[in-house]
Amino acid sequence: MTHDLLLRNVRPFGAAATDMLIRDGRIARIAPDLPAEPELAEEPGGGAILLPGLVEAHTHLDKSLWGMGWREHQAGPSLRDKIDTERRLRKEWNIDPERQSMRQALLSLGHGSTAIRSHVDVDTETGLAGIEGVARTREALQGLVDIEIVAFPQSGLMSRPGTLELLDKALSGAADVVGGLDPCGIDADPKGQLDAVFALADRHGKPIDIHLHEPGELGAFSMEMILERTRALGMQGKVTISHAFCLGMPDRDRARALVADLAEARIHVATVATPSRPVPLAEDLRAAGVTLCAGSDGIRDTWGPYGNGDMLERAMLLGLRNNLRADSDVEHALWCCSWGGAHVMGLEDYGLEKGCRADLVLVEAESVTHAVVSRPPRRLVLKGGKIVAREGRSLREAP
Amino acid sequence: MTHDLLLRNVRPFGAAATDMLIRDGRIARIAPDLPAEPELAEEPGGGAILLPGLVEAHTHLDKSLWGMGWREHQAGPSLRDKIDTERRLRKEWNIDPERQSMRQALLSLGHGSTAIRSHVDVDTETGLAGIEGVARTREALQGLVDIEIVAFPQSGLMSRPGTLELLDKALSGAADVVGGLDPCGIDADPKGQLDAVFALADRHGKPIDIHLHEPGELGAFSMEMILERTRALGMQGKVTISHAFCLGMPDRDRARALVADLAEARIHVATVATPSRPVPLAEDLRAAGVTLCAGSDGIRDTWGPYGNGDMLERAMLLGLRNNLRADSDVEHALWCCSWGGAHVMGLEDYGLEKGCRADLVLVEAESVTHAVVSRPPRRLVLKGGKIVAREGRSLREAP
Repeated sequence: MTHDLLLRNVRPFGAAATDMLIRDGRIARIAPDLPAEPELAEEPGGGAILLPGLVEAHTHLDKSLWGMGWREHQAGPSLRDKIDTERRLRKEWNIDPERQSMRQALLSLGHGSTAIRSHVDVDTETGLAGIEGVARTREALQGLVDIEIVAFPQSGLMSRPGTLELLDKALSGAADVVGGLDPCGIDADPKGQLDAVFALADRHGKPIDIHLHEPGELGAFSMEMILERTRALGMQGKVTISHAFCLGMPDRDRARALVADLAEARIHVATVATPSRPVPLAEDLRAAGVTLCAGSDGIRDTWGPYGNGDMLERAMLLGLRNNLRADSDVEHALWCCSWGGAHVMGLEDYGLEKGCRADLVLVEAESVTHAVVSRPPRRLVLKGGKIVAREGRSLREAP
Repeated sequence: MTHDLLLRNVRPFGAAATDMLIRDGRIARIAPDLPAEPELAEEPGGGAILLPGLVEAHTHLDKSLWGMGWREHQAGPSLRDKIDTERRLRKEWNIDPERQSMRQALLSLGHGSTAIRSHVDVDTETGLAGIEGVARTREALQGLVDIEIVAFPQSGLMSRPGTLELLDKALSGAADVVGGLDPCGIDADPKGQLDAVFALADRHGKPIDIHLHEPGELGAFSMEMILERTRALGMQGKVTISHAFCLGMPDRDRARALVADLAEARIHVATVATPSRPVPLAEDLRAAGVTLCAGSDGIRDTWGPYGNGDMLERAMLLGLRNNLRADSDVEHALWCCSWGGAHVMGLEDYGLEKGCRADLVLVEAESVTHAVVSRPPRRLVLKGGKIVAREGRSLREAP
């Protein structure tokens, strides 16, 4: 069964109203007043804004508490305390990675995200259970949402013997990307951790995505080590640094020099637009040509109560965090939440042009910026031309 | 006609479910299973969270573009450019203060704000037209929402001769509060502006609310001059500093010393929780006993495209900006958006206790923190016991 469809009267990224013909899961024609055909389903667009499927480029599908009833926050302020509390509560509360990733992925799909990069915990207690659970969700949601799995050593890599072997195993299996985090702050062995991460990537031929919370000069030090290894192994274009708080350091010249190095090594940055921390400035990255993508980070988990998986809301937060006011600048924030993420995930044929995969979102707004600031429920979400969500809700029921 | 009402099965600020009897516009009884009475209307609460009417403590009702169709942002990045662009567009676009304040006030009411402090521009071009327009809206919305008007010299006070006389006239009329802004940055005459502002307040017996965007030591300098005059004129408890970005300065000890001085002089702080600027830290103010209130600032105006008047969303932004994760901390963010604002505006008999005015909001959530992070449409809003909004929308239609 095909899902050919004629979208009537839609405005691609705010442009003039047009019709769009979807055939075999792709955008086949874009023109006003396309002829109706017998057997061809039509959807009225009502002049709504058409966006490409949004891209949730940094989240943790395995750990959300969504749908588990309200649970008071327990973790203390330190990163280490959050990590340890999570490992404890994962068992006490039975945070099942398959069920929870399914809930969160369908929540995101309802908000128009058709691709998700998820970091998934790998440690010596949980083993590969998280990866396996999220992989089952990915399998079950095939054709609805693309899920990329990062094998993520949340509890430490060098400091927790046995984790490296588990990562290796994950990468031989369901994991698509090698994860890492804070080689100084968590492992206190930057050379050891980064050599190990890059060796895994090299051996498995897979890209890298490293959480770097380390601030200021400490983060800059780790970033320089990542840059060095990216160049040495020819991994340009295959490395992402998530958070990269050090790029928000007060010394703007130092930060811009680092950004120039990232651009040269084609390293991407993923941000959550954290309002309470220094963050990489969208305008510096854009000027230097570094791809910035964005994500929700954890959604309502043991790390914190916030988040809803809405990448239009994330674009708004990115705009607010970077003081973006001009329409073209707010549109760029949304670009980060769509094309930016697609570039980082290596999604092929992504966009609103003829020939692109018909991963599409319809949202009622007067302009793209209006859509970002008002975030109305998504009227329609298509994945490969198939209708997968209406009025803000995925058609597939969550468990 | 009275608006007596029996609210069934509500959870005041997340406490155990109870009934609540409203009589003569006030909370008359709080207890489970109150007896039904003939002639007494009942509303089922369904176990929803009951909050006091939210308080929008810093906004600009006269300048929103809400309902005027999408207009591209035009202003450049500097404060002065935003001010000048606004004065120009106010005429070109016919931004009518009465119509626009009505639209924004009803939008806010739909989200549960039953009291609003609005700064309203006074300058030598617009004269008192803004004040008069918002005053007509206040008159028309009497009994639905309390509106307090700050006479605000947005374009400068000392640097724009004639403005002082207009402020004086406004304060003899509809204006409730004396406004000011950036005595160094805008007027380049801190002594002149602050002496004038405090003299007006003294003469009219009215409180003060000063926008202070000045960062770092410059803002600290102006703040010290405000402190000095507050003490000298015995205006403790009657002065608010809005934004107070200087309290976000990197030197935390210096900032805390200023906060201690504010506490001693009982000066309040109003924040917007701006993610792109240093801001006063909620936790420092709370520890020192300084009242922090919050507001939306301008909503979709010539200054920027953001904002929707939802004070639950503002509580979320305040929580994100201050990295608040524990439930009790997020509840405090909501306190700032309710009790905090009520304290600053001097609202009498405010709250959820017996005898308080029945300004109430019902929101479907499992806990107060859940309400903040999920921000569902307000099911019911009461003002003085009268139902004024349902399902996120004011019952009174906007123009």
